[in-house]
Amino acid sequence: MTILQYIKENINGSFVQKEMPFETKTERYKKSHVFCDYGELEENIFFLQKGIIQVEVENSQHDTRIVDFFIDHGFFCAYTSLLTSSPSDVRIIATTDCKVERFEAQALFEAYKTSLVANQLGRYASERLYLRRMKREKDFLTKTAEERYIDLISQNSEITSELNVDQIAKYLGIRPESLSRIRGKSIKQIG
Amino acid sequence: MTILQYIKENINGSFVQKEMPFETKTERYKKSHVFCDYGELEENIFFLQKGIIQVEVENSQHDTRIVDFFIDHGFFCAYTSLLTSSPSDVRIIATTDCKVERFEAQALFEAYKTSLVANQLGRYASERLYLRRMKREKDFLTKTAEERYIDLISQNSEITSELNVDQIAKYLGIRPESLSRIRGKSIKQIG
Repeated sequence: MTILQYIKENINGSFVQKEMPFETKTERYKKSHVFCDYGELEENIFFLQKGIIQVEVENSQHDTRIVDFFIDHGFFCAYTSLLTSSPSDVRIIATTDCKVERFEAQALFEAYKTSLVANQLGRYASERLYLRRMKREKDFLTKTAEERYIDLISQNSEITSELNVDQIAKYLGIRPESLSRIRGKSIKQIG
Repeated sequence: MTILQYIKENINGSFVQKEMPFETKTERYKKSHVFCDYGELEENIFFLQKGIIQVEVENSQHDTRIVDFFIDHGFFCAYTSLLTSSPSDVRIIATTDCKVERFEAQALFEAYKTSLVANQLGRYASERLYLRRMKREKDFLTKTAEERYIDLISQNSEITSELNVDQIAKYLGIRPESLSRIRGKSIKQIG
């Protein structure tokens, strides 16, 4: 899916390419490419056409946690850095080889001043990102690591087949040993 | 602060009341008023002029956790319910007596179709709500309960003086006994 198709599907069915309020470029990146690193200012927005992206954060002991995985067909960037013009406290990395559309934050902010469709798109995308964050926060407050693991594998089989134990543990916020115990238990329950 | 002032400050400095894309009503509610309960469909958006609001969620054992506190000058509602037209899995309650501006979700959705300022406002408010959620999620992944408690009391002295131990523990996602231990330790450190 492209940004054009995303707008047609979610914002305005009769939207055409020449009405696009900013210019986009299609790019390919290899696995492990860093889109935005700790301390950098985010200056781009990406739309993931194909691949998986992970968003990492570090605690004060420099242990990595994974905030989120993005798969095909959504916007990603170091959004807090973009919105607050402050150095990023997350690192955005390609988990697999990726195909993205990229556009510049400055062009988007300019479009926000006058373009209805740019604001409709920015609002819609922000709402979706909010829903993701809120769901994950509620899960942290109300579910055990085991319940969150079962959610992850049942809702995202596409992602989990691409991830190793270490990545899944970092996403659940637990140690790899704890994940091994949970996996053993889940397999026994399912079996 | 009113919605009009919020728009003038954050969206468009020359905005005037007659350009408001939807009708709002100013209302007062008593402490403990429930704005949206579990299982209800959210049909309103509120702008908090004065007071404190808490957003609660329950785990599968029906233990309550507090997702967020809102204080003066921001939008609140059961936003996931509003955006997904699904029954709310949060309860929104007045922590203190409150003064709010209220408008109907249906009027907002209608305005989103054609109004630039409605979309700018919806985008800006969604971005702010996203930033809150992301900050809290990163805190859960990277900080201890003690670090999160110290953040809460140092950044929100206005809120914490209105809250009891039980409410703070539910916000931090820990038991009241654990909070008492943390408070004792913090006081000793500060002393």
